[in-house]
Amino acid sequence: MIKRLALIGVGLIGGSLVRALREQNSVVEVVGYGRSQENLQQAVELGVIDAIADSVADAVTDADMVVIATPLGSMRPIFSEMVGHLSPEAVITDVGSVKGSVVRDAKKAFGALPARFVPGHPIAGTENSGVASSFATLFQERRVILTPLRESDPEAVRSVTAMWQSVGAEVIEMEIEHHDEVLAATSHLPHLLAYALVDSLSRRETHREIFRFAAGGFRDFSRIASSDPEMWRDIAMANREPLLEAVSSFRRELEQLEEMVRAEDGDALQALFSRAKKARDDHYE
Amino acid sequence: MIKRLALIGVGLIGGSLVRALREQNSVVEVVGYGRSQENLQQAVELGVIDAIADSVADAVTDADMVVIATPLGSMRPIFSEMVGHLSPEAVITDVGSVKGSVVRDAKKAFGALPARFVPGHPIAGTENSGVASSFATLFQERRVILTPLRESDPEAVRSVTAMWQSVGAEVIEMEIEHHDEVLAATSHLPHLLAYALVDSLSRRETHREIFRFAAGGFRDFSRIASSDPEMWRDIAMANREPLLEAVSSFRRELEQLEEMVRAEDGDALQALFSRAKKARDDHYE
Repeated sequence: MIKRLALIGVGLIGGSLVRALREQNSVVEVVGYGRSQENLQQAVELGVIDAIADSVADAVTDADMVVIATPLGSMRPIFSEMVGHLSPEAVITDVGSVKGSVVRDAKKAFGALPARFVPGHPIAGTENSGVASSFATLFQERRVILTPLRESDPEAVRSVTAMWQSVGAEVIEMEIEHHDEVLAATSHLPHLLAYALVDSLSRRETHREIFRFAAGGFRDFSRIASSDPEMWRDIAMANREPLLEAVSSFRRELEQLEEMVRAEDGDALQALFSRAKKARDDHYE
Repeated sequence: MIKRLALIGVGLIGGSLVRALREQNSVVEVVGYGRSQENLQQAVELGVIDAIADSVADAVTDADMVVIATPLGSMRPIFSEMVGHLSPEAVITDVGSVKGSVVRDAKKAFGALPARFVPGHPIAGTENSGVASSFATLFQERRVILTPLRESDPEAVRSVTAMWQSVGAEVIEMEIEHHDEVLAATSHLPHLLAYALVDSLSRRETHREIFRFAAGGFRDFSRIASSDPEMWRDIAMANREPLLEAVSSFRRELEQLEEMVRAEDGDALQALFSRAKKARDDHYE
């Protein structure tokens, strides 16, 4: 049971976590901190948080669990503002989509990585943002990746694991570097491609018609281009190297495909499409 | 009312059209022709078609409406097999995703474009194929683009329009060249990108893990990579020039994005992501 949870960043992810913890009676009190007073007020009205903190320091005081659920670019100042205000038993975790940058930020702010900080990443979300879009079932049967370090306190890892399991998630541990590479390929690159496609189409003169005649496939494909631009700016910056590698490997594949189309090589096209279809169907159907 | 509909290619699109026409009592008899006897048998058992034709010639004999719903690569031989077997009042249409190639194929097979041939393209579908995946509501509130030519018989255009309207679709007329450009951008390019992404990920050593940790966004994004490889091979070949242009314009956009990530230009990234989000939200929400 979490006695006092400090939620820094009360949006889709943080809000959904707290809603689910409340449904499971896994938390007594939640204090929220964020940039938008309007969003925080809404979080109080929706019963997601009990109180609004005036500062990060205020929020974390007396908290036994601190969850940071802000865009990655805000992590470093948030860590800095915590210094000196955490109680010794407080467990800290985050939900950032890149783990290397969060650990670097924490080290810089605290001097060394706090033993009770357990970096985490729930593989869940929607294209919506803000506390109004949060819902209690978001993490059910979803995976949460934790990337504990050698210096991490095993008890803190257990607490964070228990918290995520209580909301229906499967918890997996992974090396930081490996996490950032896998996520660059499966999440960060697809977002970049969706943003690039929608932007390139929207800049055409005929964009109204283009969107009008786009079928369901395009709607699905482009859904992730409705995601929060600030969050994705931060992810692209924080995971720069693995993302650039994923982009360049994708570009090679696309050039190969382009060459097959140019050469009218139907056999090669069908073989590639079949391989891709098989890979996807094997994994999802 | 259609008295005898000849359905050449009894799959997702053709099967769904016939199911919907039957629900509306807009057709008396449907005779089907296709390559797979198993699929045709299933179509009879499902009540989608009344009888199986032994040949294209057999299917179109005495038909007042001929619908060709096969992959684009089969169109030319199918047109050739019709020659001499069509009744004078027969209206012919197709559902191919590329219209320039279909018109070229018809001209080659018939010597000149038959006046009662009206090229068409329903903007609807799923990633599934075969008659078993067909359903009557597929075209409800979807658009169907017709690309009649100067030589097209206005009465034939009216018949095809009425057929699609009776199954709930909105019918729009467009120039062939324009259709092929718009579809290259909104449908053919996204499919190529999804196939390229899934294929490049599936060839990694860690592909099992990669798919395992892919979130809902990736699942949506990659859904269209489960589409029929033969159909998409034919589309890529048939719409080669517009598709290559769409790919190269996308590649320029991606290179620009890559450069922003490399240069850690957060403002430019956020501006681009915001523009894309706004474009998508404006059109779909």
